[in-house]
Amino acid sequence: MLETGNPKYLTILNMIIDRIKNNELVPGSKVPSENEIIKEYNVSNTTARKVLQEIEFAGWAVKVRGKGTYVNNFVIDRSAAKILSFTKNMIEQGLTPSTLVLDSEIIDKDWLITVSGKLYSVPGPIYKLRRLRLANDIPMMHETRFISLSCCPEIYEHDLQGSLYRIYSEKYHRIIEKIEQDLSAIKLDEYSKEKLGIKNETVGLKVEGVTFCDGELILEAEESIYRGDKYKFSVQAVP
Amino acid sequence: MLETGNPKYLTILNMIIDRIKNNELVPGSKVPSENEIIKEYNVSNTTARKVLQEIEFAGWAVKVRGKGTYVNNFVIDRSAAKILSFTKNMIEQGLTPSTLVLDSEIIDKDWLITVSGKLYSVPGPIYKLRRLRLANDIPMMHETRFISLSCCPEIYEHDLQGSLYRIYSEKYHRIIEKIEQDLSAIKLDEYSKEKLGIKNETVGLKVEGVTFCDGELILEAEESIYRGDKYKFSVQAVP
Repeated sequence: MLETGNPKYLTILNMIIDRIKNNELVPGSKVPSENEIIKEYNVSNTTARKVLQEIEFAGWAVKVRGKGTYVNNFVIDRSAAKILSFTKNMIEQGLTPSTLVLDSEIIDKDWLITVSGKLYSVPGPIYKLRRLRLANDIPMMHETRFISLSCCPEIYEHDLQGSLYRIYSEKYHRIIEKIEQDLSAIKLDEYSKEKLGIKNETVGLKVEGVTFCDGELILEAEESIYRGDKYKFSVQAVP
Repeated sequence: MLETGNPKYLTILNMIIDRIKNNELVPGSKVPSENEIIKEYNVSNTTARKVLQEIEFAGWAVKVRGKGTYVNNFVIDRSAAKILSFTKNMIEQGLTPSTLVLDSEIIDKDWLITVSGKLYSVPGPIYKLRRLRLANDIPMMHETRFISLSCCPEIYEHDLQGSLYRIYSEKYHRIIEKIEQDLSAIKLDEYSKEKLGIKNETVGLKVEGVTFCDGELILEAEESIYRGDKYKFSVQAVP
């Protein structure tokens, strides 16, 4: 996409970054060389060099001396303001999503969760479901969903490997209206490190959310832990 | 505020939480006792006890055996979708904000920043300004602003201890339209730990943003580090 008033190198740069994001250029593959950029976009070698420098500077690729510039491991930029299933988010990024159900239990009471400093109650009984979500077989996040069985009776009868949003809508005709959520930075605990397959000490992004459908009805709460090294959350702020 | 369809204890709970958030009840002070809640809200001792339990469970207060229930140290819930100066955010939370200018320099070129996977350029020369922001004298975050001097010439002539947004608007008549930003979890480096006065290893929330005014004009970029133990970012997600 062309930005208005941007110099040419920035336009080329964003075109190449788009190819990385679309997975046309996968991690570990080469980005176009200086000569290829010169030919393909009809620019000077100064411009081509600047493009490659900036791709590297922005963290999309790494230069290996005498070898070329290689696409870096991916980081997912996830919109925090749009309800988007993990499955769909990964497919849009050109990655192959999969899901592993870790465990589940039925809790015979309401579930309380504080979001934006306000306490909410998910009407019980609750189906507590833990899942690990992977992209190209790499564990990306794990989530705990607290689903209201009064909203979605016997949800455990359905296939829980895919999008729960789809089950809410197709099986229970629940229209999701909004999710109130809090994002915070955490140090990964042993459970998260094991599930996410991370040995070295690292950080994670915690999302605590409460999902509303059909007016003010609370359908579920969630607590998800995203790998800090693989995720950024983007939000547009307005006055 | 009354939530629709909520049980009574939840209503009382949110009223008391609001008093903590408004700083009517400051950290270290007592929340109303069981007897006070019974009298004030005309409820049973079961309800009053549940209110106190849930205030504690939600992390707003801590029970000291034989003494009472005391308001916990604050955590700021900051909306990520609303442009809000630190100063205003703190005042709304009933805290007293202050600012310490750390250092500044003029950089004689454009400043490049990648947000939401897209590279943006802030037109140079750039005024790079680092500031520490405090609430009730506690360091809460530090920020690096990369301000376009072609948008705001000689901005360093103004008082840089307060809201820069106010300077943009009052001195340069720049209307801020939106901020594109990325939130990520980081391990605090030595610089951040020193400035934020944190000794123990801890995590932070990094905000990288680019600010647009008057259409597509980029006014500034920012890179801010918020204390992970004091901040949550809230965002509403919609379909």
